[in-house]
Amino acid sequence: MDITSRLLALREAMEREGLDAYIVSGTDPHNSEYLPEAWKQREWMSGFTGSFGTLVVLKDQAGLWTDSRYFIQAEKQLKNSGIQLHKLRMPGSLDYPEWLSSTLPQKGRVGLDCFCISVVEMKRLKKNIDIKEGKIVENIDLVGDIWLNRPELPNSPLFRIETGVDAKTKIAMVRHVLQKEKSDYFVFSALDEIAWLYNIRCNDILYNPVAISYAIVGMKDTHLFVKFDKVSKEIAEELKQDGVQIHDYCRISNFLNELPKEASCCIDVSTLNYALYHQITSRCSVKEVASPLVLSKAIKNKTEIEGFRAACVKDGVAMTKFFYWLERNICNHLTETEVSEQLTAMRACCSEYISDSFHNISAYGANAALPHYSALPGQDSRLEARGLYLVDSGGQYIHGTTDITRTVSLGELTRQEKEDYTIVLKGMIALSCAVFPEGTRGCNLDALARQPMWQTLRNFGHGTGHGIGFFLNVHEGPQSIRQDLKEQAILPGMVTSNEPGIYRENSHGIRHENMILCVPVGENEFGKWYGFETLTLCYFDTSALLLELLTEEEKKWINDYHKTVYQKLAPFLNQEEVCWLAKKTKEI
Amino acid sequence: MDITSRLLALREAMEREGLDAYIVSGTDPHNSEYLPEAWKQREWMSGFTGSFGTLVVLKDQAGLWTDSRYFIQAEKQLKNSGIQLHKLRMPGSLDYPEWLSSTLPQKGRVGLDCFCISVVEMKRLKKNIDIKEGKIVENIDLVGDIWLNRPELPNSPLFRIETGVDAKTKIAMVRHVLQKEKSDYFVFSALDEIAWLYNIRCNDILYNPVAISYAIVGMKDTHLFVKFDKVSKEIAEELKQDGVQIHDYCRISNFLNELPKEASCCIDVSTLNYALYHQITSRCSVKEVASPLVLSKAIKNKTEIEGFRAACVKDGVAMTKFFYWLERNICNHLTETEVSEQLTAMRACCSEYISDSFHNISAYGANAALPHYSALPGQDSRLEARGLYLVDSGGQYIHGTTDITRTVSLGELTRQEKEDYTIVLKGMIALSCAVFPEGTRGCNLDALARQPMWQTLRNFGHGTGHGIGFFLNVHEGPQSIRQDLKEQAILPGMVTSNEPGIYRENSHGIRHENMILCVPVGENEFGKWYGFETLTLCYFDTSALLLELLTEEEKKWINDYHKTVYQKLAPFLNQEEVCWLAKKTKEI
Repeated sequence: MDITSRLLALREAMEREGLDAYIVSGTDPHNSEYLPEAWKQREWMSGFTGSFGTLVVLKDQAGLWTDSRYFIQAEKQLKNSGIQLHKLRMPGSLDYPEWLSSTLPQKGRVGLDCFCISVVEMKRLKKNIDIKEGKIVENIDLVGDIWLNRPELPNSPLFRIETGVDAKTKIAMVRHVLQKEKSDYFVFSALDEIAWLYNIRCNDILYNPVAISYAIVGMKDTHLFVKFDKVSKEIAEELKQDGVQIHDYCRISNFLNELPKEASCCIDVSTLNYALYHQITSRCSVKEVASPLVLSKAIKNKTEIEGFRAACVKDGVAMTKFFYWLERNICNHLTETEVSEQLTAMRACCSEYISDSFHNISAYGANAALPHYSALPGQDSRLEARGLYLVDSGGQYIHGTTDITRTVSLGELTRQEKEDYTIVLKGMIALSCAVFPEGTRGCNLDALARQPMWQTLRNFGHGTGHGIGFFLNVHEGPQSIRQDLKEQAILPGMVTSNEPGIYRENSHGIRHENMILCVPVGENEFGKWYGFETLTLCYFDTSALLLELLTEEEKKWINDYHKTVYQKLAPFLNQEEVCWLAKKTKEI
Repeated sequence: MDITSRLLALREAMEREGLDAYIVSGTDPHNSEYLPEAWKQREWMSGFTGSFGTLVVLKDQAGLWTDSRYFIQAEKQLKNSGIQLHKLRMPGSLDYPEWLSSTLPQKGRVGLDCFCISVVEMKRLKKNIDIKEGKIVENIDLVGDIWLNRPELPNSPLFRIETGVDAKTKIAMVRHVLQKEKSDYFVFSALDEIAWLYNIRCNDILYNPVAISYAIVGMKDTHLFVKFDKVSKEIAEELKQDGVQIHDYCRISNFLNELPKEASCCIDVSTLNYALYHQITSRCSVKEVASPLVLSKAIKNKTEIEGFRAACVKDGVAMTKFFYWLERNICNHLTETEVSEQLTAMRACCSEYISDSFHNISAYGANAALPHYSALPGQDSRLEARGLYLVDSGGQYIHGTTDITRTVSLGELTRQEKEDYTIVLKGMIALSCAVFPEGTRGCNLDALARQPMWQTLRNFGHGTGHGIGFFLNVHEGPQSIRQDLKEQAILPGMVTSNEPGIYRENSHGIRHENMILCVPVGENEFGKWYGFETLTLCYFDTSALLLELLTEEEKKWINDYHKTVYQKLAPFLNQEEVCWLAKKTKEI
């Protein structure tokens, strides 16, 4: 069944249901970024494989909305599908609710599966549909109806991990919030929040070690909703000890319907799906509250921080062995995919490695100019002994998650490549060295990483930093380091990426990425002071640097960093690799 | 009549009117920062003279709310008054509406003169009073009733100025907005907006060259409400030529009451007073729109920019002559007030000088640790030949407004004074040299000025930059450069202050302030690029610098700047002053 036939089938179903438009969401009932196959309905309907995008099908047209990360990929993948690409956040562009408010026929009927839309997004949609006096048919999964052989929901076994704080303590924290909010229950639907809350992990979803689940914490009772057969007797017993009652995943609706009528629930509308929201609000009184787990999860405790440090040693060893191998094999005309597979294999040598933390970005030459390039076997480039190679990758270790980008020279470089390389590194160093008072937000700090670039009229279009979970999602909130205004301050214990870049279409792309941990650095009459500790351990290719562009302080930072990298990694390398790393980390 | 008797009289009046609380606003019907004497009702009732603060009087207690600029001053001025100081924006502190929501008796009655409160603030107040099911008695000026010999509203003559864009063009711009908003009228009440719109100025208010007025722009007719006798025949004729009809100031209410019932009005609720809002909304349909004048006024045109440049030459000459005089008279044990008066006299020598743009901050030694110190004759310090002297001042010239701070050494300095002095200058230079892409906001840039301080765990508690009007208010929006999140981008043509500082209680205070103009610096594949041109022309005291803390680039910036200062100012100085300035601007 090709895309055209699928769209045809969907339109027939729409006709049958009397719908003028049908929305195919790009997310799942848990507002996830990474989805199991069963919930890749937008991908199945449109052929577009990006991690972010919404499909809207009308009788005589269809559109897909995505952001700048995916413009080029979407254009390719939607070719000849009859689906038009709508670019989000471009001057004058409309998002799909706004577009519907002008395109939908008066009193038009719009269908969607409201399990796969958050409350916040649904409210925006309703507001726009109201303009046309339209009606939303909320609970209609037409894709499910026509998707034969739709994959089952995954069913990996649950396991528990040591995180330094037990589930009981975390549950007590939620109850403290409930007390403050004078509420009886907190309903959680974001998978990484639930994993964090109960110290559970699972391999349901590629790259994200979470279980498909819901959780409800009450003042007296605590619940986890997962497929029953995921939970071994031992794990069930452990969870019981922590006061957690286990229910089957599909029981969540029944459970909500059986809540006492006078109960009051706290919910986080930024992640909760509209279907459950509708159920809860039609029965209980509701308080819309930001989930307290988001911030607690972002502030890592001592155990987690030690875990991150250990993971970065293991990751640095894998990266070093990988680059050593790459340099020795550069004449073999390897493809980007082959190189990427080698890197994953290097990581997998470590016994604490569980999986990659996202799909490796392995990009040679001009391909690296796409910040989210994905090498496809057969369509990818072969590496040659010149120009720059960019690799953005990470691992899920049982005691931490990593995310690292290095760009290395494979041979001769142009003056512009060297300038870009050096200036991006200056930006990364500037943020690494930042010192800032309590209360400083990511958007206040972002310019520090950019100013060395801005001074030479260079810039990059993505954020400088995102939060990173502890053996959890490689992208997490609430903090970020980017230009967008966001109130969340950067706090001690937060682990964030530091990844400035420069991208030149049809030429090259450069990104340097370390993980940085916010740490206290002092307190005085002006208040409390914070800075960053760099966690990532891997050399930077100094052969690509223009030393005359570096200040003495920047050279010192590189030399000090390289000394640390050598000291921490050498014990885990063989003799040849050690010699090689010594050269790579030689003082400049 | 002392403060105690005034409060007694107010409470008697409250009793008579059956009020549980009375709010005495710190602003006027135009939401002004600087007020004419007649509207200083909060100052008259409380004795507190700061530019920002609200008084709330209850039967058995009274409180005054102000911000950190005025904590020390308010504490002194409220002593023994029975009025309690409430510090705004401190951890856990409540503002006065929040405080009322807990302190007011159930169903309490709160009175205020709703001409002196903006719509936005009134709505916040109502929301809080509602918690107690309270009632607001909106139109009751009890202070007016008990304030015998209250000053008259000022009545200076109106004059017009050349601004590069005539009033007709500006009126057409407003009509363009009205067309877009499908509205008939735009009501303006902010005095500097009205002055900008009609190219009028006036001396009604000390420091702010504006007229007490309202304005209404309709699709066909345009109106100005000012006291009739302010307007000479010539000015009236000129305004008539521009299509502006003049009405007496007190006619505004009648005029609004006579608008056609089907009329629709645009209003800016951030500045419009609640009394007029109430009148307009009870008659017309209303659209709440940010005033388009605010941004237009902030983006200076060529004529205005040339005017600023000329004003900065005149201001620099006055500052140079002042410091030359100060150095020769330092042994005379001058008071801060005497020195301040001398500076004003120096500015007044210039024929284009109209007035100071705010009250000089003339602060010696420990006094300078209060960023908003105000020297009072008799209570001020005498300058001695050691330590630091800070002077923050500015002029209103017919072709521009200035705002400048210099801190100079009067003799021996401590190591800490020199360090602080040098580090503040590093911050000011960093912001002066910033380059940034289109769309960058002040809160994205603020850290550039602070990072040199943050690196040594120093900081300051005020914003780094505020907008400056063209022969208008020395503080204007919409842009600012500070940590607070604000969406407004910094755009070419905007004039902003650049004024980092360091303040050490009981020791010293340092601030360096220049005016900077945002200018385009290039355009390339990454977009449009902006930077700053420094407008202010006055030497920095290099004798207070620790040269070893400066980079070569910073030294070059200072030397280049000093070369410009010398070249531009020398032609207007006498022989002795020129020699002296040459020494002051000698290369470092």
